[in-house]
Amino acid sequence: MINRREVFAGQVLRLVVDRVSLPDGSISTREVVYHPGAVAIVPFLTDRKIVLIKQYRHAVGKLLWEIPAGKLEQTEKPLDCAKRELFEETGYQARRWTKILSFYTSPGFTDEQITLFVAKELIQAGTFDTREIGLVSIISQSQIEQMVNAERIRDGKTLLALFCVGMLPATLPS
Amino acid sequence: MINRREVFAGQVLRLVVDRVSLPDGSISTREVVYHPGAVAIVPFLTDRKIVLIKQYRHAVGKLLWEIPAGKLEQTEKPLDCAKRELFEETGYQARRWTKILSFYTSPGFTDEQITLFVAKELIQAGTFDTREIGLVSIISQSQIEQMVNAERIRDGKTLLALFCVGMLPATLPS
Repeated sequence: MINRREVFAGQVLRLVVDRVSLPDGSISTREVVYHPGAVAIVPFLTDRKIVLIKQYRHAVGKLLWEIPAGKLEQTEKPLDCAKRELFEETGYQARRWTKILSFYTSPGFTDEQITLFVAKELIQAGTFDTREIGLVSIISQSQIEQMVNAERIRDGKTLLALFCVGMLPATLPS
Repeated sequence: MINRREVFAGQVLRLVVDRVSLPDGSISTREVVYHPGAVAIVPFLTDRKIVLIKQYRHAVGKLLWEIPAGKLEQTEKPLDCAKRELFEETGYQARRWTKILSFYTSPGFTDEQITLFVAKELIQAGTFDTREIGLVSIISQSQIEQMVNAERIRDGKTLLALFCVGMLPATLPS
Protein backbone atom coordinates (compact mmCIF):
# COMPACT_ATOMS: atom_id res chain seq x y z
CA MET A 1 0.00 0.00 0.00
CA ILE A 2 1.33 3.45 -0.95
CA ASN A 3 -1.25 5.62 0.78
CA ARG A 4 -4.81 5.67 2.12
CA ARG A 5 -7.58 8.25 2.02
CA GLU A 6 -10.54 7.76 4.37
CA VAL A 7 -13.64 8.90 2.55
CA PHE A 8 -16.43 7.99 4.97
CA ALA A 9 -16.87 6.67 8.49
CA GLY A 10 -20.56 6.03 9.17
CA GLN A 11 -22.63 4.16 11.72
CA VAL A 12 -21.99 0.82 10.00
CA LEU A 13 -19.59 1.24 7.08
CA ARG A 14 -16.18 2.83 6.60
CA LEU A 15 -14.90 3.52 3.09
CA VAL A 16 -11.27 4.09 2.17
CA VAL A 17 -9.44 4.58 -1.12
CA ASP A 18 -5.99 3.00 -1.13
CA ARG A 19 -3.23 3.41 -3.68
CA VAL A 20 -1.41 0.12 -4.02
CA SER A 21 1.54 -1.09 -6.05
CA LEU A 22 1.06 -4.37 -7.90
CA PRO A 23 3.70 -7.11 -8.19
CA ASP A 24 4.81 -5.83 -11.62
CA GLY A 25 5.47 -2.36 -10.17
CA SER A 26 2.40 -0.64 -11.64
CA ILE A 27 0.10 1.46 -9.45
CA SER A 28 -3.61 0.96 -8.93
CA THR A 29 -6.37 2.10 -6.56
CA ARG A 30 -8.61 -0.04 -4.36
CA GLU A 31 -11.93 1.20 -2.98
CA VAL A 32 -12.53 -0.75 0.22
CA VAL A 33 -15.64 -0.90 2.43
CA TYR A 34 -14.96 -2.01 5.99
CA HIS A 35 -17.90 -3.75 7.66
CA PRO A 36 -18.29 -4.97 11.27
CA GLY A 37 -19.15 -8.53 10.15
CA ALA A 38 -22.39 -10.42 10.54
CA VAL A 39 -24.03 -13.69 11.44
CA ALA A 40 -26.79 -15.71 9.78
CA ILE A 41 -28.86 -18.52 11.21
CA VAL A 42 -30.70 -21.52 9.75
CA PRO A 43 -33.48 -22.12 12.32
CA PHE A 44 -34.82 -25.69 12.08
CA LEU A 45 -38.35 -26.15 13.39
CA THR A 46 -38.32 -29.81 12.35
CA ASP A 47 -35.88 -31.87 10.23
CA ARG A 48 -37.41 -30.55 7.03
CA LYS A 49 -38.89 -27.20 8.02
CA ILE A 50 -37.04 -23.96 8.61
CA VAL A 51 -37.97 -20.39 9.51
CA LEU A 52 -37.42 -17.76 6.81
CA ILE A 53 -38.14 -14.04 6.92
CA LYS A 54 -39.23 -11.65 4.24
CA GLN A 55 -37.97 -8.12 4.55
CA TYR A 56 -37.59 -4.97 2.52
CA ARG A 57 -33.97 -4.32 1.58
CA HIS A 58 -33.42 -0.65 0.89
CA ALA A 59 -30.06 -1.27 -0.84
CA VAL A 60 -31.69 -3.38 -3.57
CA GLY A 61 -35.16 -1.80 -3.42
CA LYS A 62 -36.89 -5.17 -3.04
CA LEU A 63 -38.54 -7.52 -0.59
CA LEU A 64 -36.22 -10.51 -0.14
CA TRP A 65 -36.65 -13.94 1.43
CA GLU A 66 -33.71 -14.58 3.75
CA ILE A 67 -32.58 -16.59 6.71
CA PRO A 68 -32.41 -14.48 9.92
CA ALA A 69 -29.18 -12.48 10.09
CA GLY A 70 -27.64 -9.34 11.47
CA LYS A 71 -24.54 -7.28 12.08
CA LEU A 72 -22.17 -7.79 14.99
CA GLU A 73 -22.31 -5.07 17.61
CA GLN A 74 -19.00 -3.84 19.02
CA THR A 75 -17.19 -6.63 20.92
CA GLU A 76 -20.20 -8.94 20.45
CA LYS A 77 -19.31 -12.59 19.87
CA PRO A 78 -20.86 -14.24 16.79
CA LEU A 79 -22.87 -16.78 18.81
CA ASP A 80 -24.32 -14.08 21.09
CA CYS A 81 -25.18 -12.02 18.03
CA ALA A 82 -26.88 -15.03 16.43
CA LYS A 83 -29.02 -15.63 19.52
CA ARG A 84 -30.00 -11.97 19.67
CA GLU A 85 -30.81 -11.69 15.98
CA LEU A 86 -32.80 -14.93 15.87
CA PHE A 87 -34.97 -13.68 18.74
CA GLU A 88 -35.37 -10.14 17.37
CA GLU A 89 -36.19 -11.26 13.85
CA THR A 90 -38.39 -14.29 14.55
CA GLY A 91 -39.35 -14.39 18.26
CA TYR A 92 -37.68 -17.82 18.53
CA GLN A 93 -35.00 -18.98 20.93
CA ALA A 94 -33.03 -22.19 20.38
CA ARG A 95 -31.57 -24.76 22.75
CA ARG A 96 -29.00 -26.19 20.30
CA TRP A 97 -26.55 -24.09 18.35
CA THR A 98 -23.91 -25.28 15.87
CA LYS A 99 -21.46 -23.16 13.91
CA ILE A 100 -21.30 -24.24 10.27
CA LEU A 101 -18.75 -22.02 8.55
CA SER A 102 -17.73 -18.45 7.93
CA PHE A 103 -17.12 -16.77 4.60
CA TYR A 104 -16.39 -13.44 2.91
CA THR A 105 -19.44 -12.02 1.14
CA SER A 106 -17.55 -10.04 -1.52
CA PRO A 107 -13.78 -9.88 -0.93
CA GLY A 108 -13.18 -7.79 -4.05
CA PHE A 109 -14.33 -4.67 -2.20
CA THR A 110 -15.32 -5.45 1.41
CA ASP A 111 -13.97 -7.31 4.43
CA GLU A 112 -17.48 -8.34 5.51
CA GLN A 113 -17.46 -11.84 6.90
CA ILE A 114 -20.58 -13.84 7.79
CA THR A 115 -20.56 -16.65 10.34
CA LEU A 116 -23.27 -19.19 9.72
CA PHE A 117 -25.08 -21.11 12.47
CA VAL A 118 -27.70 -23.82 12.69
CA ALA A 119 -30.28 -23.42 15.47
CA LYS A 120 -32.37 -26.39 16.63
CA GLU A 121 -34.93 -27.15 19.37
CA LEU A 122 -36.71 -23.84 18.89
CA ILE A 123 -39.04 -22.26 21.44
CA GLN A 124 -41.41 -19.45 20.52
CA ALA A 125 -40.39 -16.93 23.18
CA GLY A 126 -41.71 -13.62 21.83
CA THR A 127 -42.75 -11.81 18.69
CA PHE A 128 -40.62 -10.40 15.92
CA ASP A 129 -39.58 -6.81 15.31
CA THR A 130 -42.22 -5.56 12.88
CA ARG A 131 -40.21 -2.39 12.23
CA GLU A 132 -37.69 -4.40 10.23
CA ILE A 133 -39.29 -7.72 9.35
CA GLY A 134 -42.30 -8.01 7.07
CA LEU A 135 -43.10 -11.68 7.51
CA VAL A 136 -41.84 -14.71 9.42
CA SER A 137 -42.71 -17.95 7.69
CA ILE A 138 -42.23 -21.66 8.18
CA ILE A 139 -41.06 -23.20 4.92
CA SER A 140 -40.67 -26.85 4.02
CA GLN A 141 -37.80 -28.35 2.04
CA SER A 142 -39.95 -28.88 -1.04
CA GLN A 143 -41.19 -25.28 -0.92
CA ILE A 144 -37.59 -24.07 -0.68
CA GLU A 145 -36.59 -26.00 -3.78
CA GLN A 146 -39.54 -24.53 -5.65
CA MET A 147 -38.70 -21.01 -4.48
CA VAL A 148 -35.06 -21.33 -5.55
CA ASN A 149 -35.98 -22.78 -8.94
CA ALA A 150 -38.44 -19.91 -9.45
CA GLU A 151 -35.66 -17.43 -8.49
CA ARG A 152 -37.65 -16.23 -5.49
CA ILE A 153 -34.65 -16.65 -3.16
CA ARG A 154 -32.00 -14.21 -4.38
CA ASP A 155 -29.87 -13.64 -1.29
CA GLY A 156 -26.40 -15.19 -1.49
CA LYS A 157 -25.94 -16.10 2.19
CA THR A 158 -29.39 -17.74 2.23
CA LEU A 159 -28.66 -19.84 -0.87
CA LEU A 160 -25.26 -20.88 0.49
CA ALA A 161 -26.74 -21.74 3.89
CA LEU A 162 -29.53 -23.84 2.37
CA PHE A 163 -26.94 -25.92 0.49
CA CYS A 164 -24.71 -26.26 3.56
CA VAL A 165 -27.52 -27.73 5.68
CA GLY A 166 -28.82 -30.07 2.97
CA MET A 167 -32.06 -28.20 2.25
CA LEU A 168 -31.12 -27.89 -1.42
CA PRO A 169 -29.86 -30.67 -3.70
CA ALA A 170 -26.18 -30.45 -4.66
CA THR A 171 -26.98 -29.68 -8.28
CA LEU A 172 -29.41 -27.05 -9.46
CA PRO A 173 -31.31 -27.78 -12.66
CA SER A 174 -29.90 -25.63 -15.46
CA MET B 1 -36.96 7.63 1.59
CA ILE B 2 -36.81 11.11 3.14
CA ASN B 3 -33.53 12.31 1.72
CA ARG B 4 -30.20 11.17 0.30
CA ARG B 5 -26.64 12.38 0.74
CA GLU B 6 -24.05 11.16 -1.75
CA VAL B 7 -20.81 10.63 0.11
CA PHE B 8 -18.54 9.10 -2.52
CA ALA B 9 -18.53 8.34 -6.24
CA GLY B 10 -15.39 6.40 -7.14
CA GLN B 11 -14.15 4.34 -10.05
CA VAL B 12 -16.12 1.28 -8.91
CA LEU B 13 -18.26 2.11 -5.87
CA ARG B 14 -20.76 4.83 -5.00
CA LEU B 15 -21.77 5.37 -1.38
CA VAL B 16 -24.92 7.19 -0.25
CA VAL B 17 -26.51 7.79 3.14
CA ASP B 18 -30.30 7.74 3.01
CA ARG B 19 -32.77 8.78 5.68
CA VAL B 20 -35.77 6.47 5.51
CA SER B 21 -39.04 6.21 7.40
CA LEU B 22 -39.95 2.74 8.64
CA PRO B 23 -43.48 1.26 8.53
CA ASP B 24 -44.12 2.30 12.17
CA GLY B 25 -43.29 5.94 11.37
CA SER B 26 -39.83 5.99 13.01
CA ILE B 27 -36.83 7.34 11.13
CA SER B 28 -33.60 5.50 10.41
CA THR B 29 -30.53 5.85 8.19
CA ARG B 30 -29.23 3.42 5.58
CA GLU B 31 -25.66 3.43 4.31
CA VAL B 32 -25.76 1.99 0.80
CA VAL B 33 -22.91 0.98 -1.52
CA TYR B 34 -23.83 0.86 -5.20
CA HIS B 35 -21.78 -1.59 -7.23
CA PRO B 36 -21.78 -2.23 -11.01
CA GLY B 37 -22.45 -5.97 -10.55
CA ALA B 38 -20.22 -8.89 -11.37
CA VAL B 39 -19.98 -12.35 -12.88
CA ALA B 40 -18.33 -15.54 -11.70
CA ILE B 41 -17.49 -18.66 -13.66
CA VAL B 42 -17.07 -22.35 -12.80
CA PRO B 43 -14.67 -23.56 -15.54
CA PHE B 44 -14.87 -27.35 -15.96
CA LEU B 45 -11.76 -28.94 -17.43
CA THR B 46 -13.31 -32.41 -17.05
CA ASP B 47 -16.44 -33.65 -15.25
CA ARG B 48 -14.65 -33.61 -11.91
CA LYS B 49 -11.90 -31.02 -12.36
CA ILE B 50 -12.28 -27.27 -12.34
CA VAL B 51 -9.97 -24.28 -12.62
CA LEU B 52 -9.52 -22.15 -9.50
CA ILE B 53 -7.38 -19.08 -9.00
CA LYS B 54 -5.52 -17.81 -5.98
CA GLN B 55 -5.25 -14.07 -5.65
CA TYR B 56 -4.40 -11.44 -3.09
CA ARG B 57 -7.50 -9.56 -1.92
CA HIS B 58 -6.56 -6.17 -0.60
CA ALA B 59 -9.96 -5.68 1.13
CA VAL B 60 -9.41 -8.70 3.38
CA GLY B 61 -5.59 -8.63 3.39
CA LYS B 62 -5.35 -12.29 2.38
CA LEU B 63 -4.68 -14.65 -0.49
CA LEU B 64 -7.98 -16.34 -1.37
CA TRP B 65 -8.89 -19.33 -3.52
CA GLU B 66 -11.75 -18.34 -5.82
CA ILE B 67 -13.49 -19.17 -9.03
CA PRO B 68 -12.68 -16.67 -11.82
CA ALA B 69 -14.84 -13.54 -11.53
CA GLY B 70 -14.96 -9.86 -12.28
CA LYS B 71 -16.95 -6.66 -12.43
CA LEU B 72 -19.20 -5.69 -15.30
CA GLU B 73 -17.91 -2.84 -17.40
CA GLN B 74 -20.38 -0.17 -18.48
CA THR B 75 -23.10 -1.64 -20.74
CA GLU B 76 -21.27 -4.99 -20.80
CA LYS B 77 -23.55 -8.03 -20.82
CA PRO B 78 -22.92 -10.66 -18.13
CA LEU B 79 -22.01 -13.40 -20.62
CA ASP B 80 -19.53 -11.16 -22.45
CA CYS B 81 -18.03 -10.17 -19.12
CA ALA B 82 -17.74 -13.83 -18.11
CA LYS B 83 -15.90 -14.71 -21.35
CA ARG B 84 -13.53 -11.76 -20.90
CA GLU B 85 -12.81 -12.49 -17.24
CA LEU B 86 -12.27 -16.21 -17.77
CA PHE B 87 -9.70 -15.47 -20.45
CA GLU B 88 -7.97 -12.66 -18.51
CA GLU B 89 -7.79 -14.61 -15.27
CA THR B 90 -6.96 -18.10 -16.55
CA GLY B 91 -6.00 -17.92 -20.25
CA TYR B 92 -8.86 -20.31 -21.07
CA GLN B 93 -11.70 -19.86 -23.52
CA ALA B 94 -14.80 -22.06 -23.45
CA ARG B 95 -17.08 -23.39 -26.17
CA ARG B 96 -20.11 -24.07 -23.92
CA TRP B 97 -21.59 -21.52 -21.54
CA THR B 98 -24.57 -21.98 -19.22
CA LYS B 99 -26.04 -19.41 -16.85
CA ILE B 100 -26.74 -20.95 -13.44
CA LEU B 101 -28.27 -18.24 -11.27
CA SER B 102 -27.80 -14.71 -10.03
CA PHE B 103 -27.79 -13.52 -6.43
CA TYR B 104 -27.20 -10.52 -4.18
CA THR B 105 -23.90 -10.77 -2.29
CA SER B 106 -24.94 -8.69 0.73
CA PRO B 107 -28.29 -6.94 0.31
CA GLY B 108 -28.14 -5.35 3.78
CA PHE B 109 -25.77 -2.69 2.43
CA THR B 110 -25.04 -3.18 -1.28
CA ASP B 111 -26.92 -3.79 -4.52
CA GLU B 112 -24.07 -5.93 -5.89
CA GLN B 113 -25.42 -8.83 -7.86
CA ILE B 114 -23.34 -11.73 -9.20
CA THR B 115 -24.39 -13.81 -12.18
CA LEU B 116 -22.94 -17.28 -12.10
CA PHE B 117 -21.95 -19.26 -15.20
CA VAL B 118 -20.62 -22.70 -15.98
CA ALA B 119 -18.00 -22.90 -18.74
CA LYS B 120 -17.23 -26.22 -20.46
CA GLU B 121 -15.10 -27.44 -23.37
CA LEU B 122 -12.16 -25.27 -22.41
CA ILE B 123 -9.30 -24.33 -24.72
CA GLN B 124 -6.04 -22.92 -23.42
CA ALA B 125 -5.87 -19.78 -25.57
CA GLY B 126 -3.39 -17.58 -23.73
CA THR B 127 -1.82 -16.89 -20.37
CA PHE B 128 -3.32 -15.25 -17.32
CA ASP B 129 -2.85 -11.69 -16.07
CA THR B 130 -0.02 -12.06 -13.57
CA ARG B 131 -0.63 -8.50 -12.30
CA GLU B 132 -3.80 -9.65 -10.58
CA ILE B 133 -3.69 -13.43 -10.34
CA GLY B 134 -1.14 -15.29 -8.26
CA LEU B 135 -1.86 -18.83 -9.34
CA VAL B 136 -4.16 -20.73 -11.70
CA SER B 137 -4.72 -24.29 -10.59
CA ILE B 138 -6.63 -27.36 -11.70
CA ILE B 139 -8.44 -28.82 -8.70
CA SER B 140 -10.29 -32.12 -8.43
CA GLN B 141 -13.59 -32.65 -6.63
CA SER B 142 -11.93 -34.53 -3.76
CA GLN B 143 -9.36 -31.76 -3.31
CA ILE B 144 -12.16 -29.19 -3.22
CA GLU B 145 -13.97 -31.07 -0.45
CA GLN B 146 -10.75 -31.23 1.53
CA MET B 147 -10.05 -27.54 1.01
CA VAL B 148 -13.56 -26.54 2.14
CA ASN B 149 -13.41 -28.79 5.20
CA ALA B 150 -10.04 -27.28 6.10
CA GLU B 151 -11.56 -23.78 5.67
CA ARG B 152 -9.15 -22.99 2.85
CA ILE B 153 -11.98 -21.75 0.60
CA ARG B 154 -13.46 -18.72 2.31
CA ASP B 155 -15.09 -16.81 -0.54
CA GLY B 156 -18.90 -16.87 -0.49
CA LYS B 157 -19.53 -16.88 -4.26
CA THR B 158 -17.04 -19.72 -4.71
CA LEU B 159 -18.66 -21.85 -1.98
CA LEU B 160 -22.14 -21.19 -3.37
CA ALA B 161 -21.00 -21.97 -6.93
CA LEU B 162 -19.34 -25.24 -5.89
CA PHE B 163 -22.60 -26.40 -4.31
CA CYS B 164 -24.67 -25.29 -7.32
CA VAL B 165 -22.62 -27.37 -9.76
CA GLY B 166 -22.48 -30.46 -7.54
CA MET B 167 -18.77 -30.21 -6.61
CA LEU B 168 -19.65 -30.18 -2.90
CA PRO B 169 -21.99 -32.59 -1.11
CA ALA B 170 -25.31 -31.08 0.02
CA THR B 171 -24.40 -31.33 3.68
CA LEU B 172 -21.15 -30.14 5.20
CA PRO B 173 -19.81 -32.10 8.15
CA SER B 174 -20.36 -30.08 11.33
